[in-house]
Amino acid sequence: MSRLSFNHATAKFWDQGEAIEACAREGIGIGLWREPVAEYGLERTVAALDRTGVPVTTLCRGGFFTTGSRESIEDNKRAVDEARALGTKVLVLVSGGLPEGSRDVDGARERVADALAELAPYAGEAGVTLAIEPLHPMFASDRCVVSTLDQAIDLSLPFPAEQVGVVVDTYHVWWDPNLYPAIARAGAAGRIASFQVADWVTPLPAGVLTGRGQVGTGCVEMRRIKAAVDEAGYSGPIEVELFNDELWARPGAEVFAETVQAYAEHVAD
Amino acid sequence: MSRLSFNHATAKFWDQGEAIEACAREGIGIGLWREPVAEYGLERTVAALDRTGVPVTTLCRGGFFTTGSRESIEDNKRAVDEARALGTKVLVLVSGGLPEGSRDVDGARERVADALAELAPYAGEAGVTLAIEPLHPMFASDRCVVSTLDQAIDLSLPFPAEQVGVVVDTYHVWWDPNLYPAIARAGAAGRIASFQVADWVTPLPAGVLTGRGQVGTGCVEMRRIKAAVDEAGYSGPIEVELFNDELWARPGAEVFAETVQAYAEHVAD
Repeated sequence: MSRLSFNHATAKFWDQGEAIEACAREGIGIGLWREPVAEYGLERTVAALDRTGVPVTTLCRGGFFTTGSRESIEDNKRAVDEARALGTKVLVLVSGGLPEGSRDVDGARERVADALAELAPYAGEAGVTLAIEPLHPMFASDRCVVSTLDQAIDLSLPFPAEQVGVVVDTYHVWWDPNLYPAIARAGAAGRIASFQVADWVTPLPAGVLTGRGQVGTGCVEMRRIKAAVDEAGYSGPIEVELFNDELWARPGAEVFAETVQAYAEHVAD
Repeated sequence: MSRLSFNHATAKFWDQGEAIEACAREGIGIGLWREPVAEYGLERTVAALDRTGVPVTTLCRGGFFTTGSRESIEDNKRAVDEARALGTKVLVLVSGGLPEGSRDVDGARERVADALAELAPYAGEAGVTLAIEPLHPMFASDRCVVSTLDQAIDLSLPFPAEQVGVVVDTYHVWWDPNLYPAIARAGAAGRIASFQVADWVTPLPAGVLTGRGQVGTGCVEMRRIKAAVDEAGYSGPIEVELFNDELWARPGAEVFAETVQAYAEHVAD
């Protein structure tokens, strides 16, 4: 159970301080989000982490590079600074979708590579790894033009592994016919910066963003994917990150307890 | 415009006879569906086609192999017979998703290969090509475990090209980082049996089945994909196939006219 980390988005509306306390009692890590950190206060968050000893496994999230704006680069530098302040080595990046009105998916993907080239050295100096998260292809137009693990690995390879890595999130990659070779490839290149788990359940809700299933409730081969990620040499935290309207409507402490139980039953060895 | 074909599902609730008449007046082909054909009557459909000279570009659809049942094989043989009776060379196959309660996606994919091995010679004798349609990965669990064009090509290659080919449908494949190499590969192997177009628009509706956009309303690079398919050596029909609740709520003749116009504007050379 020591590898479990609770991503705060799983109980999105739960007070961040209470979430940190719960992780401390359970002896596990936490994945944090920039907006709630800012709302709670960065210094106050750092103090709570110091007091409890809870490690921050990832900061979510940077990215949204595809417009190619300066503003986006500057904002991502701030995200790197925040990650360093929180003591986490991993900043999760969601690349962004097609700019408004654009059909140029290749161009958008090039903007991601350009932004990485600018940010990677900055992240490296801060001791933070930029972790490219491929999102499920159903998000390709409006959220993330990086759609497969292989594509994320290709984007990472021009940079040192400590500067740019990838996220393996079961929800986004389970369907990929090339999943297991890609996991092995990511591991061999030392690129697995984060491993996240969520289950795939249907029917998908309108907008498809908030339909991730609690671990064990869907069709993802959790232990098989976990074994492949282990085999690839990753021994770091395993974050449960669920976007789910039904979970969000329930008390955070209840969702936390359920999540710890589901992880024990369906993911942990 | 001579390559345009109107897939009847685009105006799902329009009388099939009227749809055939409209295609005749426009001088284009039609893609038919088994259930409306059965409802209208197979012989009556054949008579309407003979009278008007409208070619049937595809019959939709066979498939749903993943339970591995005998029933599914027998039903697909009937679909081959119907395709032959309708004078079309192409039977579109949607492979099926995971069987109820199953997480074994590899196993489901093997069932598809097994079913093809059993059906391919039967189709070959009937002069019908089984056209494997990769569906967007958002359908991988509940509708189609074949999720990429490369995967469909791999499934087709053990068989002669006249027995098993693939469908390129813009809606399902536009996001694929390996799309253009895959189209070239499919063409080089003589496997492109059907080319269908629909546009990608967001937000997706609940259940995600009925959100396909009219050609030109979304982010798909229609002419670029068409050029790649042409370049790969495919010179056959181009079917507009839209599943869209708003279109289905409108009069069929109106949707037909709009579709012809959209194709002329966004797809035709």
